Amino acid sequence: MSDRVFRIGLLGRGTVGAAFAELLPARAVHIEAITGMRPEIIGVLRRSEGDFEAILEASDLVVEVMGGIEPARDYVLRAMLAGKHVVTANKQLLSQHGEELWACARDNGVQLRFEAAVAGVVPVIRVLGESLAAASLDRIHGIVNGTTNFILSEMARTGCSYEDALADAQRLGYAEADPTEDVNGKDAAAKMAIIARLAFDTPVHLDQVVYEGIEHITADDMEYARELGLGLKLLGTAERVDGGLSVRVHPAFLYGSHPLASVGGPFNAVTIESEAITEITLSGPGAGGPQTASAVLGDVISAMIPPASTPEATHALEIIQDVESAFYLHMEVADRPGVLAQVAQILGLQGASVKSVVQKGLGEKARLVMVVHPMLESRFFAAVDLIAGLDFMRSRPRAIRVIEEEFIS
Amino acid sequence: MSDRVFRIGLLGRGTVGAAFAELLPARAVHIEAITGMRPEIIGVLRRSEGDFEAILEASDLVVEVMGGIEPARDYVLRAMLAGKHVVTANKQLLSQHGEELWACARDNGVQLRFEAAVAGVVPVIRVLGESLAAASLDRIHGIVNGTTNFILSEMARTGCSYEDALADAQRLGYAEADPTEDVNGKDAAAKMAIIARLAFDTPVHLDQVVYEGIEHITADDMEYARELGLGLKLLGTAERVDGGLSVRVHPAFLYGSHPLASVGGPFNAVTIESEAITEITLSGPGAGGPQTASAVLGDVISAMIPPASTPEATHALEIIQDVESAFYLHMEVADRPGVLAQVAQILGLQGASVKSVVQKGLGEKARLVMVVHPMLESRFFAAVDLIAGLDFMRSRPRAIRVIEEEFIS
Repeated sequence: MSDRVFRIGLLGRGTVGAAFAELLPARAVHIEAITGMRPEIIGVLRRSEGDFEAILEASDLVVEVMGGIEPARDYVLRAMLAGKHVVTANKQLLSQHGEELWACARDNGVQLRFEAAVAGVVPVIRVLGESLAAASLDRIHGIVNGTTNFILSEMARTGCSYEDALADAQRLGYAEADPTEDVNGKDAAAKMAIIARLAFDTPVHLDQVVYEGIEHITADDMEYARELGLGLKLLGTAERVDGGLSVRVHPAFLYGSHPLASVGGPFNAVTIESEAITEITLSGPGAGGPQTASAVLGDVISAMIPPASTPEATHALEIIQDVESAFYLHMEVADRPGVLAQVAQILGLQGASVKSVVQKGLGEKARLVMVVHPMLESRFFAAVDLIAGLDFMRSRPRAIRVIEEEFIS
Repeated sequence: MSDRVFRIGLLGRGTVGAAFAELLPARAVHIEAITGMRPEIIGVLRRSEGDFEAILEASDLVVEVMGGIEPARDYVLRAMLAGKHVVTANKQLLSQHGEELWACARDNGVQLRFEAAVAGVVPVIRVLGESLAAASLDRIHGIVNGTTNFILSEMARTGCSYEDALADAQRLGYAEADPTEDVNGKDAAAKMAIIARLAFDTPVHLDQVVYEGIEHITADDMEYARELGLGLKLLGTAERVDGGLSVRVHPAFLYGSHPLASVGGPFNAVTIESEAITEITLSGPGAGGPQTASAVLGDVISAMIPPASTPEATHALEIIQDVESAFYLHMEVADRPGVLAQVAQILGLQGASVKSVVQKGLGEKARLVMVVHPMLESRFFAAVDLIAGLDFMRSRPRAIRVIEEEFIS
């Protein structure tokens, strides 16, 4: 173990702060392998306890997850003036005082990182600031509020009213008791202001973002949308228009082929468009303590030490060749009784469980198509070899794997 | 203009090299604003001309886009031994000699960056190495070969044979004259070896990746897939299995709800799964000179100077509030003749062009729903105000924007 400790002061211990305090020690050994330093939380400032000055003094980096403007702004500025790096998840602060904070970071030669402020664990800030640092971008579309995306997804899925979907979201923890700033679009507007600032090198204040929420969307709208082949999202947009920049948030219908149309539930997603690269889409969970804490931790590691190069492999997992898979099995068979039974018997002896069967065609065209549940590939292929030897097979059976997992989005 | 020049040696001038040589000067001013240094290509090594030693001597960083194992390996090693950073797009090299190269980079304190080697402009290497540097990952699924994804998308869309879809891909420039390593899965296997190495801190050699191609897929398979509600992709997988690691590439059916199911055409996409974050999906164009050159340039900028903090805003675009949008317009109207004509007249006077109209219901339930083509929002809302004043309107009309763009994927 290294003697070098990287000292972190944690401001705020709500959902994200608590998740971060849990995540950091769990990953500390791995982080030390990457950075050469052992990260440790040396102090936590809660509303009712802790001494900011003492925490600041003892820290190399400050994580700000208090939210709100003051005293967060004061603390972040003082930390940077004292030469400490800052990682923040505070979208209100950055969308209203970003220029002041970024200037302070530059003047004091410290890093101010804020991936978690924008779209949870979706790495849009890093991709804009690093991968696409030199790209000339045309437009960004974003689903950057998980609460409203969940509500709209529920309305589309069940045909229920806005009020019922909101109640569901609150019951499931996807909406707060007071959901005003989520459903009226203000939360998304703050995030789009930050994204637009990064993407277009133009200062954008929350007040300059036009926004409209989803409170007026009805079940009726959803029904017409379905008829017209459209999906409805609360969409943030930042785009070049006539030599200027438009930043706005409003509900919008999307055609099914749009990469954001299939983003459902509490997920966030951002599409970045540029003539040279066409488009990149990033999606993932938009909120949640562990997810946001994971984004904060990625920023902390980057601030600890810029990743110079690929670190040495810390552990060599065994490379495994035989895994479990579900399979589609396509067989051209003679059209006579007993075929299905013999195939099924061979599969059963190898432990295969058949999920679905389709028999098709007659005479020369007869086919048997099956989907089997996941099983060890070696056993499946052993069964296929046996089946291939049956006298009624008209050609070698063909197998294709099936990915069975169902996803939220 | 700064006096500091950052000198780049370019090895290889095929499609990617030529695109990079065009992109760099176009973005040089912007890069200088970010990094404080002006990047310049000081020498190009082609197969038939150029002196590697002279280029190396004069460079701060070497971009290797020659492809193949030798002499690329020799050049990359010599560059790093000489203390130069290297950016490469060479998947063959990294999947077969990665450990040697990464060790050399560490030993010499230089950066070896390779975003462009894996999935074109999709920033999977940066996200794995930085955003998720400390995450414990469970599984990665990837569509990492654009040629095969285009072929499978064409087969699904048109019902054509594999041979016809391949011929289409070659005609459109999505497949090379000799497509062997794309269609047999070897290209994807090399990329999955690199991704798995980064994601699981385990050395993975191309020889350890089990792969199977798409040459045996038939139109018949596609038809059954449609019946079963499945999509077919050439899927790369890297996942923890029984304390080991499985890395493989094979065709696989995906349920429509899987985030990779909707990735069509020559696009690439990667889904990264972890218990803590559920999943992140990244997608975008997988190949093409300008796209790959853009990924190379992102790596070059990162090697020039780690982004310390958000740079000063270099230009302030005007923030524009009134933009053009397409709209859905929902009206509850009295059920009598002339209603549509009056609404259409008002819209027409404001320059609106109606794309579709649905009239529904009778009596108290009568509704008129329209979609209008993009127009200036201020003019649209002026029309809505006039329409709201018509005596047959039973409530205030409701408007929702429609995003009209069609995407490749």
